[in-house]
Amino acid sequence: MTALPPGAMIGILGGGQLGRMLAMAAARLGYRTAVLEPGEAPAAQLAGAWTRAPFDDMDALAAFARACDVVTYEFENVPLAALDVIAPHAPIHPGRRVLEIGQDRLTEKDFLTGLSLRTARYRDVPTLPMLRAALADLGTPAVLKTRRMGYDGKGQQVIRDAAQAGAAFDALQGAPAILEAFVDFTAEVSVIVARGGDGETVAYDPGENVHEDGILRTTTVPAGLPAARRADAVLLAGRIANALDYVGVLGIELFVTDDALLVNEIAPRVHNSGHWTQLGCATDQFEQHIRAIAGLPLGDGARHCDVVMENLIGDDMDRIPALLAEGGVQLHLYGKAETRAGRKMGHFNRVSQPR
Amino acid sequence: MTALPPGAMIGILGGGQLGRMLAMAAARLGYRTAVLEPGEAPAAQLAGAWTRAPFDDMDALAAFARACDVVTYEFENVPLAALDVIAPHAPIHPGRRVLEIGQDRLTEKDFLTGLSLRTARYRDVPTLPMLRAALADLGTPAVLKTRRMGYDGKGQQVIRDAAQAGAAFDALQGAPAILEAFVDFTAEVSVIVARGGDGETVAYDPGENVHEDGILRTTTVPAGLPAARRADAVLLAGRIANALDYVGVLGIELFVTDDALLVNEIAPRVHNSGHWTQLGCATDQFEQHIRAIAGLPLGDGARHCDVVMENLIGDDMDRIPALLAEGGVQLHLYGKAETRAGRKMGHFNRVSQPR
Repeated sequence: MTALPPGAMIGILGGGQLGRMLAMAAARLGYRTAVLEPGEAPAAQLAGAWTRAPFDDMDALAAFARACDVVTYEFENVPLAALDVIAPHAPIHPGRRVLEIGQDRLTEKDFLTGLSLRTARYRDVPTLPMLRAALADLGTPAVLKTRRMGYDGKGQQVIRDAAQAGAAFDALQGAPAILEAFVDFTAEVSVIVARGGDGETVAYDPGENVHEDGILRTTTVPAGLPAARRADAVLLAGRIANALDYVGVLGIELFVTDDALLVNEIAPRVHNSGHWTQLGCATDQFEQHIRAIAGLPLGDGARHCDVVMENLIGDDMDRIPALLAEGGVQLHLYGKAETRAGRKMGHFNRVSQPR
Repeated sequence: MTALPPGAMIGILGGGQLGRMLAMAAARLGYRTAVLEPGEAPAAQLAGAWTRAPFDDMDALAAFARACDVVTYEFENVPLAALDVIAPHAPIHPGRRVLEIGQDRLTEKDFLTGLSLRTARYRDVPTLPMLRAALADLGTPAVLKTRRMGYDGKGQQVIRDAAQAGAAFDALQGAPAILEAFVDFTAEVSVIVARGGDGETVAYDPGENVHEDGILRTTTVPAGLPAARRADAVLLAGRIANALDYVGVLGIELFVTDDALLVNEIAPRVHNSGHWTQLGCATDQFEQHIRAIAGLPLGDGARHCDVVMENLIGDDMDRIPALLAEGGVQLHLYGKAETRAGRKMGHFNRVSQPR
């Protein structure tokens, strides 16, 4: 990859907070940005241009791509057809393959187990009899997940008793699904890893995540893991990135059990659980992603302090005055006009005492 | 001052790199920004709106002000008449008085000595005979400076011999000037201080500056000063901010001599010598300025590592590949299209070993 010169144009598919923070990082490196997003676009407030078009508007996509020197995305459900329209006009990083894999939980699990990595036990359940058989096999509770388009806990049902199989299957409304064994984890951690076009990888320290109602609430670094398991988590992340010939930042969520690290899911983008890097590292995950896709050397991912990141969701906005008055707190708001329950409005990073 | 709510509009007069970094900081706090700048405007790349008009276009200024909840500026030579057009429509921070004082070296020196602070010895030199008398009084070498519109060393002449008085005076072409005694300083330091609308002040650690050809080259923190003199510098800065009933971030340049701290000049804005705060503090000078003018509590200005900031001027852009490959370096480019000799194109902050 040739390094993009300052002034080059980086296209971002999706205009949410991740795109917004990518646009800021790109600006710091002297790049211009353009955003394609049909809905409200906090990222467009900071980008040089905003194409307000749906992701299936092929003419808009082609025109957008022609104006860009490289195109990236901030969400994993970008239609593959959109990439195919863009590809003749501009390189796309991360590439198409990771989206193909990541957009389907079954394909993703097969990919991961194919690398000899461990995941929750899972079964493809295209029919109700197969769901019943899978429940008998994996036991209850188990989690029924649609194969496609799930994030922040959407598209998931916990089945606590085999008798619920029929109702749960009906609720899928025909969407293909997999059944995953319930994982009795002691912690959820994630690794944010970056890989450059030359194959160099830089991983950040694993963060420990707490979810509420399926939405990330806090990430704490360092994670409460023995050093050897932290190293295992980082090595595993590098292995996934290499296997994908990945370019950019990749988020990998892991379940920690008494005897293993299980890969829960991979997100081919900057990740909410990597926001702590804005306070804790000289190069944060957003700049790291921009460096990778622009063909620049990756930056320094060393952590220089302990950090707790906490999301501001919905009415958490009421906490802002207190947070602003607190020392060691770095606030990041997303410029969203409307506060809604469950909506990520911002986050903050707080320097914490070494644990 | 009532705190501005997220989504409020902050107007910035001037569209250079300082405005650009202010716009980014405002975005992190959930504010929108508008820039008024007649020329090239790196800040406009990140602002929500750009009024491309000169600072004496009164209609444009009024329309701009009506769209803003507060107006600030990124350079000290804003015409006072522009503020008078804005004032009926939106509050302006910092206020008019500091500009009146700061735009005239004589008024500024009189203000500072009026606070019993020390400056270089100086004389008003409205006529050539008065310049000759001042040279006899202050000795040579001495520095002849225009009273108005000087920055980055522009508008200054060193007089090494009293015989040069006539030529130096002629070179002023009638511009009012002051003569300053040459200061035999051991170091140049600066203090960046913020003051909120409630009178709270937060000062950053003094930085030690090295200039080349009248342009700031590096700032190092901590400055190589005994602790007591560092404290003196910070106290002096707070005193100036209080005396001005200042709201916002104020840069104060000091000469360090064997026995004193002399105030060289004050800049009523974020300051190049405060860029290190982007790496060294939870709240950088840009966010601190936005907090102050938006009526928010000031943030945490504690320094959590040692930093050297270095400007990238003109052809220094050639150093970027090497800097990107170096650990502990945070790069900030300004998005300027054209590299010119002497032009500030960016800067970088580097974590340094404790000195």
